[in-house]
Amino acid sequence: MRNAPLGFFDSGVGGLTVVRAVQQLLPAEDIVYLGDTARLPYGSKSPETIRQFAHEDVRFLLSREVKMIVVACNTATAHALPSLQEQYRIPIIGVIEPGVEAVLSDPAAQRIGIIATRGTVGSHAYQHELALRRTGLILHATPAPLLVPLVEEDWLDHPATRAALHTYLDPMLDRGIDTLMLACTHYPLLIPVLKDFLPDGVRLVDSATTCAEHVRNQLTELNLLSEDSTPGSLQINLTDISDQFEDLARRFLARSPGRIQRVSL
Amino acid sequence: MRNAPLGFFDSGVGGLTVVRAVQQLLPAEDIVYLGDTARLPYGSKSPETIRQFAHEDVRFLLSREVKMIVVACNTATAHALPSLQEQYRIPIIGVIEPGVEAVLSDPAAQRIGIIATRGTVGSHAYQHELALRRTGLILHATPAPLLVPLVEEDWLDHPATRAALHTYLDPMLDRGIDTLMLACTHYPLLIPVLKDFLPDGVRLVDSATTCAEHVRNQLTELNLLSEDSTPGSLQINLTDISDQFEDLARRFLARSPGRIQRVSL
Repeated sequence: MRNAPLGFFDSGVGGLTVVRAVQQLLPAEDIVYLGDTARLPYGSKSPETIRQFAHEDVRFLLSREVKMIVVACNTATAHALPSLQEQYRIPIIGVIEPGVEAVLSDPAAQRIGIIATRGTVGSHAYQHELALRRTGLILHATPAPLLVPLVEEDWLDHPATRAALHTYLDPMLDRGIDTLMLACTHYPLLIPVLKDFLPDGVRLVDSATTCAEHVRNQLTELNLLSEDSTPGSLQINLTDISDQFEDLARRFLARSPGRIQRVSL
Repeated sequence: MRNAPLGFFDSGVGGLTVVRAVQQLLPAEDIVYLGDTARLPYGSKSPETIRQFAHEDVRFLLSREVKMIVVACNTATAHALPSLQEQYRIPIIGVIEPGVEAVLSDPAAQRIGIIATRGTVGSHAYQHELALRRTGLILHATPAPLLVPLVEEDWLDHPATRAALHTYLDPMLDRGIDTLMLACTHYPLLIPVLKDFLPDGVRLVDSATTCAEHVRNQLTELNLLSEDSTPGSLQINLTDISDQFEDLARRFLARSPGRIQRVSL
C-alpha cells in the first residue's frame, strides 16, 4: 500500500503545476495523473456537472489502486471535495485549504484579492475558508475566466493579457490588497508577468507548494510515504489527446511529460 | 414528417446564431436545439473526440424525431460531417459549404482570410472546399482561439479583444485580403467591432444567412417544408445549464431563449 501511486486529477493539464511541486518534495512517489481534457474546462460549468465529472475522475483513479487522491483543480475542489470525501474512504486532498493556509502564513495579511474561474469564485469556498480562520479580513474575489485560455495560448506577455489583467486587477489594487491568491492551477505560469504588473508590497500566493506540503504531512501521518528510494514514475492519462495538450503538459510540468495515455471514463 | 422539427446541434450556444437566421427565413418551422455545454468547447479537442461527440449529439436529435439535422458548429462540421452523412439516412447539413458559397458569391473574391477555432483551421475543410470551387485563390487561415472566450465574456469592445484581433488579423491584412470568413458561429457577435477594425474594402462573411438558405432549399427539394402556418417553437436542450449559458443564449438569439431543458446524452 505504501508503494502504491498517488492519484491526481484536474479538468485538464493545469494540475501538473501541483504534480511538479509534489515531485520536488517527494521524488520517490509514483504518480498517476488524470486530465479530463475531453470535457475541459470545468471552471465555467454548473456545480452539479462539476460534481458528476469529479466522481467519475475519482472512480478512474481508484481503478488504478492509488493510495491517496489530490484534487489538483480549484473548481473541482470548490464544488466536489466534501461530496468526494463523504463517498470514498481513501484520503482525498484538495488545493483550497493549502491555498488558504499559504495566504494566512503571513500574519499581516488582511486585504486579500482572489482570482479564479467563475465556478471557484461562485462557490465562495476560498472566501468561506479564509473567513473561518481569521476575523476582519477584507476579501475581493473576481472571476478571471480569460486567464486560462490566455495561458493556454502561451500569451503570457501579450497586450491582450495585460489588458485582461487591468480589467481584473485594477479594481482590487484600487482597494489596496496586500495579497493576491492565484486560485487556479493555470495561473502560476503568469507569475513573471504578475510580478512586473503588481505594485511592490503585494504578495503573490499560489497553492502548489503548500499543497505538496499537505500531501507529505498526510502521507506521514497515515504511514503511507513510499519506502522506495528510486525516483518515482509519472503516468499521465488524458480523456482527449491533441498536439496542444502535449505542448501544454510540457509547459506546466517544465519538462517532457513522457508517453501520454488516452483513456475513457 | 413535414411538420416534424428541424434538429440543430453545437458544442454550446454559438449555434443559436444559425437558429436565428433559420427562424427569420422559415418562421413556421419547429426547432429542437442541442448544445453540448457540459463538454464545450469542441474547437480545441482532437478530431476523434469531436467525431465521437457529434455522433452522440446526432443520436440525441434522432430520438426527438427531427426531419433534418443542421450541424450548427464549424468544428463539428469540419471533422464529423462526412462520417455523420455516411452513417445516418436523415439529411444532415453543415455550415462550411454555405460559408464557402457565401465567400464565392462575390466573383472578385480572391484573397481570402479565414479565422476559426484551431480544430476548424487544422481540418483544412474551408481551404479544401474553397480551392475545389475556384482556382487561383490565395488563402490565409489563422486559428483565433481567444475569440470564443472573449465573445463569451461579452468583451466585444475591450482592449484585450482589440489586442487579440491585431495578433490574428494584422498578418492577413498585410497580405491584402479582400474577404474575411468568420468560420465560427460565435464570431457574428464581433461584426460591429470588426467593421470598425478592418480597412474599407474587406468584405465580412459569416455562414448563418447562407446556411439558412441551404436549409430552405433542401427542405423544398425534399418536400419537407412545414405546412403549419403558425409560428414555430424553439426547444433548447443543453447538457449543462448555468446562469452564464442562459445569458449567452439570450445574446446569441437576440431574444429570450424560453425554458431551457437539461439533458444527458
